[in-house]
Amino acid sequence: MTTVTAARVDVPAHIAQNPGAHRVLTGERPTGSLHVGHYFGTLQNRVLLQDLGVDMFIVIADYQVLTDRDVAGNLPAIVEGVVLDYLAVGIDPAKATIFAHSSVAALNQLLLPFLSLVSTAELSRNPTVKDEIAASGRSQVSGLMFTYPVHQAADLLFCKSTLVPVGDDQLPHIELTRTIARRFNDRYAQLFPLPEAMLSHAPRLLGTDGRKMGKSGGNAVSIKSSADETAAIVKTAKTDAERRITFEPERRPEVSNLVLLAALAAGRDPHEVAEEIGDGGAAVLKRVVTEAVNERLAPVRARRAEYAAEPGLVRGILREGGERANAVADQTLLEVKEAMLTYY
Amino acid sequence: MTTVTAARVDVPAHIAQNPGAHRVLTGERPTGSLHVGHYFGTLQNRVLLQDLGVDMFIVIADYQVLTDRDVAGNLPAIVEGVVLDYLAVGIDPAKATIFAHSSVAALNQLLLPFLSLVSTAELSRNPTVKDEIAASGRSQVSGLMFTYPVHQAADLLFCKSTLVPVGDDQLPHIELTRTIARRFNDRYAQLFPLPEAMLSHAPRLLGTDGRKMGKSGGNAVSIKSSADETAAIVKTAKTDAERRITFEPERRPEVSNLVLLAALAAGRDPHEVAEEIGDGGAAVLKRVVTEAVNERLAPVRARRAEYAAEPGLVRGILREGGERANAVADQTLLEVKEAMLTYY
Repeated sequence: MTTVTAARVDVPAHIAQNPGAHRVLTGERPTGSLHVGHYFGTLQNRVLLQDLGVDMFIVIADYQVLTDRDVAGNLPAIVEGVVLDYLAVGIDPAKATIFAHSSVAALNQLLLPFLSLVSTAELSRNPTVKDEIAASGRSQVSGLMFTYPVHQAADLLFCKSTLVPVGDDQLPHIELTRTIARRFNDRYAQLFPLPEAMLSHAPRLLGTDGRKMGKSGGNAVSIKSSADETAAIVKTAKTDAERRITFEPERRPEVSNLVLLAALAAGRDPHEVAEEIGDGGAAVLKRVVTEAVNERLAPVRARRAEYAAEPGLVRGILREGGERANAVADQTLLEVKEAMLTYY
Repeated sequence: MTTVTAARVDVPAHIAQNPGAHRVLTGERPTGSLHVGHYFGTLQNRVLLQDLGVDMFIVIADYQVLTDRDVAGNLPAIVEGVVLDYLAVGIDPAKATIFAHSSVAALNQLLLPFLSLVSTAELSRNPTVKDEIAASGRSQVSGLMFTYPVHQAADLLFCKSTLVPVGDDQLPHIELTRTIARRFNDRYAQLFPLPEAMLSHAPRLLGTDGRKMGKSGGNAVSIKSSADETAAIVKTAKTDAERRITFEPERRPEVSNLVLLAALAAGRDPHEVAEEIGDGGAAVLKRVVTEAVNERLAPVRARRAEYAAEPGLVRGILREGGERANAVADQTLLEVKEAMLTYY
């Protein structure tokens, strides 16, 4: 019997021993509200690393929203909502630097020198980009989609990050970043540490429709959802025709996904959760999930509401984070120009 | 008998009648000193347009130097030398805005939204990029080479240029810029005029080795060369085995190229120039070329030396031009964000 516990990363010993020597870059595209998949998958890890004393930069990649769509939606509201989600789960803007791409000009400009260090053949080979192109359902690949791993390299390298907590789909991007850093260091000057991937062991939660959980897909319980909204969306979740509830992810993905969510929320073993429900069937399962998620998120949501009520709080955090990120990015761009363009 | 006169553009009537309504974007990569090919090919046209009252932006594309090489050379010296070349030929920084890519962050960042408006298929099809890839002799195409037409679109669109004086090899780039502008205008907001190409009728001068004249090739008379240096480089020019000098560009490209250079420099007809030299052969031809070029460029070179002796002049021009370009670029980027990213 496998025990599935709450998501976490195994922090390697050399990091735990000297966390102040490490800088983490993490973040996401602001395409919607953060959801329980983020909460159990990455957000708790960020808080863990932050509290360990690792220096953390969190980028809200607003310039990357258009990689797979033509319209960005109401970005100011989405970006501010994401910051509230961060605060609600315990990310402390005094410890972590939270900023949006669009406010850090020097980071974005690193795209130009870094593009000179990769070939189009290398960009074409990236398996994650290939998957995302397929998933986007678009007939053409935009230049932004094709080059976004280089922009992501600029994210990781502008702040000279040493650690990147990622899922395994992100490994090709980390590899490209390391290639760019290595080529820069070899050709021009030893400027960049090679960032290391820190693989998350978070179990992957599916959306209520059995597909990938999405920020903009309407198939996820958002962190900010109310208890009633949570009940409503769990009620729509796919199950199957077997009455007895079990935890068998391979054979019964939808039911097992709900069991997993309840187990993660309650901090329990999913097999035990399934056993307790037994012949209660899907209706009881959904009630258990709803109660566990609502109970777990109640204090998070209460904090979020408090922060949301503070006028100017989020804008101030983004402004301050932007200033810190700009100072770091300006310095790095200057070093890059000095080394690479013989400084103009 | 074709009369070849000094290079010029035919300024269309609607521009000549209302030059103040037009903005021109032009410029070059700082890969070396400007030479007689630039002087007769484009620099005189710029002065003509400037004096007509057209608003002109001249970009020194320092971020694009690495498209086809790994090392940029001594960029500060090259960039400042190019500005001195501009001043020497009569470009007036009070009328024209001279700036370097690296000093205008908002222009460079337009690359990101514009990359979302083109497909990799469109970028792959660009015939000029294909030629340049072949000419670069590199086995791999860098991401910077592949995407530079989009960066060039950012050059043309950041200042909402309406006119671009170009050779026909640049037409695919103008077309891509118009495509990006059209898609942006259709999808988000009517922000950009579609820039028009203004084709130069400048005869193309070859280098002294019979190949394309290059800023960094050592096969060209630089504007800044001394009279003696000019004599020395003309002396190395390829000719052919026929003693009698004629102007037959198709049959005798090297000899005709020298005749053309002498004719352009003296403001005369190349057939007449050839006739006068007649049986004097290559030695007399080279003396005539050297004298004509040195005489034509003497006042230009004298002005250049005067400007070069003024401490801080060039840096001040680049700083002021950069400030003007930044003000325009910041405003355009703001409009783009408001329209495209629903403004963050």
